[in-house]
Amino acid sequence: MSLNTFGHLFRVTTWGESHGPALGATVDGCPPGVSLCEEDIQPWLDKRRPGQNRFTTQRQEPDQVRILSGVYQGVTTGTPIQLMIENTDQRSKDYGDIAQSFRPGHADITYHLKYGVRDPRGGGRSSARETAARVAAGGVARAVLTHLVPGFWLTGYMVQIGPHGIDRGRMDIAQIAENPFWCPDPVAATEWAGYLDGIRKAGSSVGAVIEVVAEGVPPGLGAPIYGKLDADLCAAMMSINAVKAVEIGAGMAAATLTGVDNADEIRMGSDGPEFLSNHAGGILGGISTGQPVIVRFAVKPTSSILTPRRTVTVTGEDSDLITKGRHDPCVGIRAVPVGEAMMACVILDHLLLDRGQTGGQRGLIG
Amino acid sequence: MSLNTFGHLFRVTTWGESHGPALGATVDGCPPGVSLCEEDIQPWLDKRRPGQNRFTTQRQEPDQVRILSGVYQGVTTGTPIQLMIENTDQRSKDYGDIAQSFRPGHADITYHLKYGVRDPRGGGRSSARETAARVAAGGVARAVLTHLVPGFWLTGYMVQIGPHGIDRGRMDIAQIAENPFWCPDPVAATEWAGYLDGIRKAGSSVGAVIEVVAEGVPPGLGAPIYGKLDADLCAAMMSINAVKAVEIGAGMAAATLTGVDNADEIRMGSDGPEFLSNHAGGILGGISTGQPVIVRFAVKPTSSILTPRRTVTVTGEDSDLITKGRHDPCVGIRAVPVGEAMMACVILDHLLLDRGQTGGQRGLIG
Amino acid sequence: MSLNTFGHLFRVTTWGESHGPALGATVDGCPPGVSLCEEDIQPWLDKRRPGQNRFTTQRQEPDQVRILSGVYQGVTTGTPIQLMIENTDQRSKDYGDIAQSFRPGHADITYHLKYGVRDPRGGGRSSARETAARVAAGGVARAVLTHLVPGFWLTGYMVQIGPHGIDRGRMDIAQIAENPFWCPDPVAATEWAGYLDGIRKAGSSVGAVIEVVAEGVPPGLGAPIYGKLDADLCAAMMSINAVKAVEIGAGMAAATLTGVDNADEIRMGSDGPEFLSNHAGGILGGISTGQPVIVRFAVKPTSSILTPRRTVTVTGEDSDLITKGRHDPCVGIRAVPVGEAMMACVILDHLLLDRGQTGGQRGLIG
Amino acid sequence: MSLNTFGHLFRVTTWGESHGPALGATVDGCPPGVSLCEEDIQPWLDKRRPGQNRFTTQRQEPDQVRILSGVYQGVTTGTPIQLMIENTDQRSKDYGDIAQSFRPGHADITYHLKYGVRDPRGGGRSSARETAARVAAGGVARAVLTHLVPGFWLTGYMVQIGPHGIDRGRMDIAQIAENPFWCPDPVAATEWAGYLDGIRKAGSSVGAVIEVVAEGVPPGLGAPIYGKLDADLCAAMMSINAVKAVEIGAGMAAATLTGVDNADEIRMGSDGPEFLSNHAGGILGGISTGQPVIVRFAVKPTSSILTPRRTVTVTGEDSDLITKGRHDPCVGIRAVPVGEAMMACVILDHLLLDRGQTGGQRGLIG
Repeated sequence: MSLNTFGHLFRVTTWGESHGPALGATVDGCPPGVSLCEEDIQPWLDKRRPGQNRFTTQRQEPDQVRILSGVYQGVTTGTPIQLMIENTDQRSKDYGDIAQSFRPGHADITYHLKYGVRDPRGGGRSSARETAARVAAGGVARAVLTHLVPGFWLTGYMVQIGPHGIDRGRMDIAQIAENPFWCPDPVAATEWAGYLDGIRKAGSSVGAVIEVVAEGVPPGLGAPIYGKLDADLCAAMMSINAVKAVEIGAGMAAATLTGVDNADEIRMGSDGPEFLSNHAGGILGGISTGQPVIVRFAVKPTSSILTPRRTVTVTGEDSDLITKGRHDPCVGIRAVPVGEAMMACVILDHLLLDRGQTGGQRGLIG
Repeated sequence: MSLNTFGHLFRVTTWGESHGPALGATVDGCPPGVSLCEEDIQPWLDKRRPGQNRFTTQRQEPDQVRILSGVYQGVTTGTPIQLMIENTDQRSKDYGDIAQSFRPGHADITYHLKYGVRDPRGGGRSSARETAARVAAGGVARAVLTHLVPGFWLTGYMVQIGPHGIDRGRMDIAQIAENPFWCPDPVAATEWAGYLDGIRKAGSSVGAVIEVVAEGVPPGLGAPIYGKLDADLCAAMMSINAVKAVEIGAGMAAATLTGVDNADEIRMGSDGPEFLSNHAGGILGGISTGQPVIVRFAVKPTSSILTPRRTVTVTGEDSDLITKGRHDPCVGIRAVPVGEAMMACVILDHLLLDRGQTGGQRGLIG
Repeated sequence: MSLNTFGHLFRVTTWGESHGPALGATVDGCPPGVSLCEEDIQPWLDKRRPGQNRFTTQRQEPDQVRILSGVYQGVTTGTPIQLMIENTDQRSKDYGDIAQSFRPGHADITYHLKYGVRDPRGGGRSSARETAARVAAGGVARAVLTHLVPGFWLTGYMVQIGPHGIDRGRMDIAQIAENPFWCPDPVAATEWAGYLDGIRKAGSSVGAVIEVVAEGVPPGLGAPIYGKLDADLCAAMMSINAVKAVEIGAGMAAATLTGVDNADEIRMGSDGPEFLSNHAGGILGGISTGQPVIVRFAVKPTSSILTPRRTVTVTGEDSDLITKGRHDPCVGIRAVPVGEAMMACVILDHLLLDRGQTGGQRGLIG
Repeated sequence: MSLNTFGHLFRVTTWGESHGPALGATVDGCPPGVSLCEEDIQPWLDKRRPGQNRFTTQRQEPDQVRILSGVYQGVTTGTPIQLMIENTDQRSKDYGDIAQSFRPGHADITYHLKYGVRDPRGGGRSSARETAARVAAGGVARAVLTHLVPGFWLTGYMVQIGPHGIDRGRMDIAQIAENPFWCPDPVAATEWAGYLDGIRKAGSSVGAVIEVVAEGVPPGLGAPIYGKLDADLCAAMMSINAVKAVEIGAGMAAATLTGVDNADEIRMGSDGPEFLSNHAGGILGGISTGQPVIVRFAVKPTSSILTPRRTVTVTGEDSDLITKGRHDPCVGIRAVPVGEAMMACVILDHLLLDRGQTGGQRGLIG
């Protein structure tokens, strides 16, 4: 949690710009002895990869990951894992105008103000392209979690695009991979296609809500007061480009509940206590309960749009800006695998933190 | 951001349990040469103090803060500031039942699972009482911000209780201190009083939404990718007891916006660029724009209620639990000064971080 | 390792000035379930306590430690442990002159330059008194190490005062507590008494070398490249007041050795590999070998002496300064328990770090 | 200071193994607006490069650094700088034996014990080759220091090889680059050549002492209690392969001094206070005085030697090991630019930390 590094013990440092020669992630603190090769990571990058359908940017990047260190004979050695992805489809000419003015709603202006200098090509460091490095790091985290936590399972999906939410009654995890929106409601997915086509043709873009769920998370991960599992999940999701809100469990709706309704009641089951509901999203007091951990985040609409917007230039003149180039009409779609990656990193990090402090022992009930 | 420490350079470590002899905060990294005395901090603690009206717990604590170090002759010395608050109104007998069973919706069970041992008196470390230490640390941060940033100003208020929101057309900052809810809408405040009386008498509790706004925040605070100002604000707010969601600017509603509507357009003003709206909540790309920084968070209802809820005991038996004792019917009320304190700490921390990296110089426009 | 906090997972934050109302340490990340009470910590403070013989400052402080948090019913809860020691024998009038000029060889001038303000009473934060807080924290670390590592054992002692070293042929651990110098060589101890009396009567002071040894340290603690066990030990010892050098194992003498002589050869023993010598001081590549961990550090002479030394005043005038007051003729004596405390903290911290990353599993040999 | 990351604000993460495809450093927190290109960094790598004379390993590596991110149009952007060096002369066949047994005095055995798996090719992560990445990062730090601190200047040199020290009366900084030992005493350099030839031909190796001096360091860098400039320098140097001791200023000799002799007396000069000596090595109370900062460290002899040494195999059998391959007879020679790099990184880091906390303002004298 220091500029470009995330995590306490499983520490991910990402680097690289959209149009530089390469970008990547340095993963430090990975447990040794875990099977890992590039083929374990590539599928998650492929899921995030642009240009796969008409609803994502038409930039064509293979996003081929290379492991440059930290793995020997197919096994992690406990030393830093360098994951590098070369940039191959940089068309910097697309970005000439942007260097001289600031896209409204974009980080162009704040980078300029803070640093006095910025790499305008493709948004430089502020490009969503940086998230490829996170997805690669998340692939490592998933491999370790699979190794350490039998039954661990994690997935993300879109639950809303613009004002159109899914019908949770129709939710089917098997449907997620069957449509371009990672939408678990097939009826909604069909409607969204038409809606987003309209948005795109209108030269606009739209926001979305993503939900990520992890099952099999052991109880006891997270710690008071500032190392809470939900605080770290919140920071992780908010650090993703364009995210403006994060919810855990009932989220904003928790404000509307009474204490009677919000209480996740408990009864003894055959394997210990069982919760009868999960408003908590699997986290109480910042510590996992053993229930599914549920996070949602809202992604704002892409600020690079074809509709002219009022702005100013670097030289201080009023200007109207149209952003040409290849942009996502709903960047939320590609945020799904990014949210998954961040969740995997956070959970693994807290698993390591917990076994550091407690040795992984749990208090008994019954 | 490591268990009980928050911050990069302005680092706050809180310690203490609800019913121990004292609690406090160790503030490290404070700039030297800032006027500071206990009277600068006490008003914020008084604002958070319980027992001031019928809508907060009837526990009576003076919450008198003592500065034990780091200040000499009324000025900060740059060394750690120890802020201690002695606990004086501990009635541990109130908590006998809770030691043997777990309040649904409370951290009782996760502390037990993680640590195998917990201090059940008043919730121990998971008590909202811990937030007094944050408020004290926030008082230090405010004093420093006032010293370093002319025109800095920060306030928090409730915008929703249960399902009842304010009417933003009636919003009046001057009203905040005039009602027990820190509500800027006097009409809503009156309605809320009746509503919360009903909740309380029904032996239940209810959630709330708090908004905190900071004005005068210089542009350029925050940094990619994991040290974003909004990521740290999000972690800060989520680390507060009972918070389940955090929003920046438009928040969850950003998902419903189009790129055309979401763009905060810019025009040159007399003192540089001016934004024509603030969906961004004062933060783009994780870096402050110079506009007001706006954060909202949802607080779930208090889990300690007089209505029986199903739970289990430490020995593994099903049980129905009523939580007697002195509890807040809406813990969100006292979360207002806590949210303010966290925001002050985060903004100061990023101010120090920024001048560390950039020397505080800003890129020019025009 | 950030201003006033030391450690990765077992994190100690010290606070307080020599003549403020109190000083202490906030210990975060302590494993839960460890028996701990004030009586476990007090003996180490008593060992460091001033005024016990004519070779240490005559300030009389009971240095009574209070545990304010993090322990419930005699057991650590995993939450922050606040250790507070009240200052009772502050004679600030002793320090009037020092406020206006700078003791040569003392931190007076650098505090003034850096912060523009300093607490001159007893040296304020730069006083050796701060080390009482470290000793208290070290007492917690020892209790945890005893709980987690059967056979762990740690001790410190003086091996040199001024130019006078011990004869290692006469070394006897049982002698350490039998003389005012924590000296394992009884003959040397007798000689040192006469030598130090002379130094003291001459209005001067003298330096010393301390050695700390830990036995029973499991192999595998420490990590490349910057989290090396020896790098952290080195930082820990160098952070103690007046320390100017740190050695591991053969230390500076390693420079004079050939590779043939320096090699700690290995043979299989009944319980695994055994080293035939320990030039490495129990650490190879920054990771413990399982042999005794051996650290030495040099302490410079106290800068507060009765012999006049040339200096300047705050107002920029040349001046000759005599430092009256109660000062140690050899501050190295009281550094012994401080070095022990730092070593205990570092080893425990790395034990927790190691089990976080590796789960504590070890590679097999044979 | 967390496994493979060093620094508070100027943070360097190194990655890579001796015989992997590449190694490098991720530099985060670099100030923006500093001129930087590969040609600024390469000279320092060339200084460390092996195979330049008969006294260093004959491995031939161009050690060509590439900047993959964080620099745009020849200027740092404030985002992470990835420095990559491809490995080109890996002869892994040289290392067959080492995979099955442990070199005495080498990290082979501790890596095996800790991780259960290690990359034996060229020592993997524990190879001195890792220090190339540090030197590259140090090149960035030097460029920034030159930009921010007029008059800053830093150099390292050998002051002792085996038992043979320099004559300080003959010291001449201009001589450092004129001999293969970076030795400032030309007479000693000639003698050392004969001595080291003997060591090498005997199939052995030898240790050395390196000194690094920085001039023009502003006063006020460093901070109590654990963020002391000397504590961080100490950790930085001790983190270098084969280092066994670190001294600041008078170092171990401080133990032999009296307070009268050790006092660096002060007199007012034309530009403020001037110290009449520098036993302190430019650091008092962990904070720079403005005098030259002086650090020395001892490097043990290379453990890979041609003389057979007793050891054990992975399968637990006694064995006698001769280490063939291309090894440095005195690894201390190549440690000179590494020590320089670490010192540059630490001083820059503390410069940024200081201006974060204090704004870089200094207390007045006179």
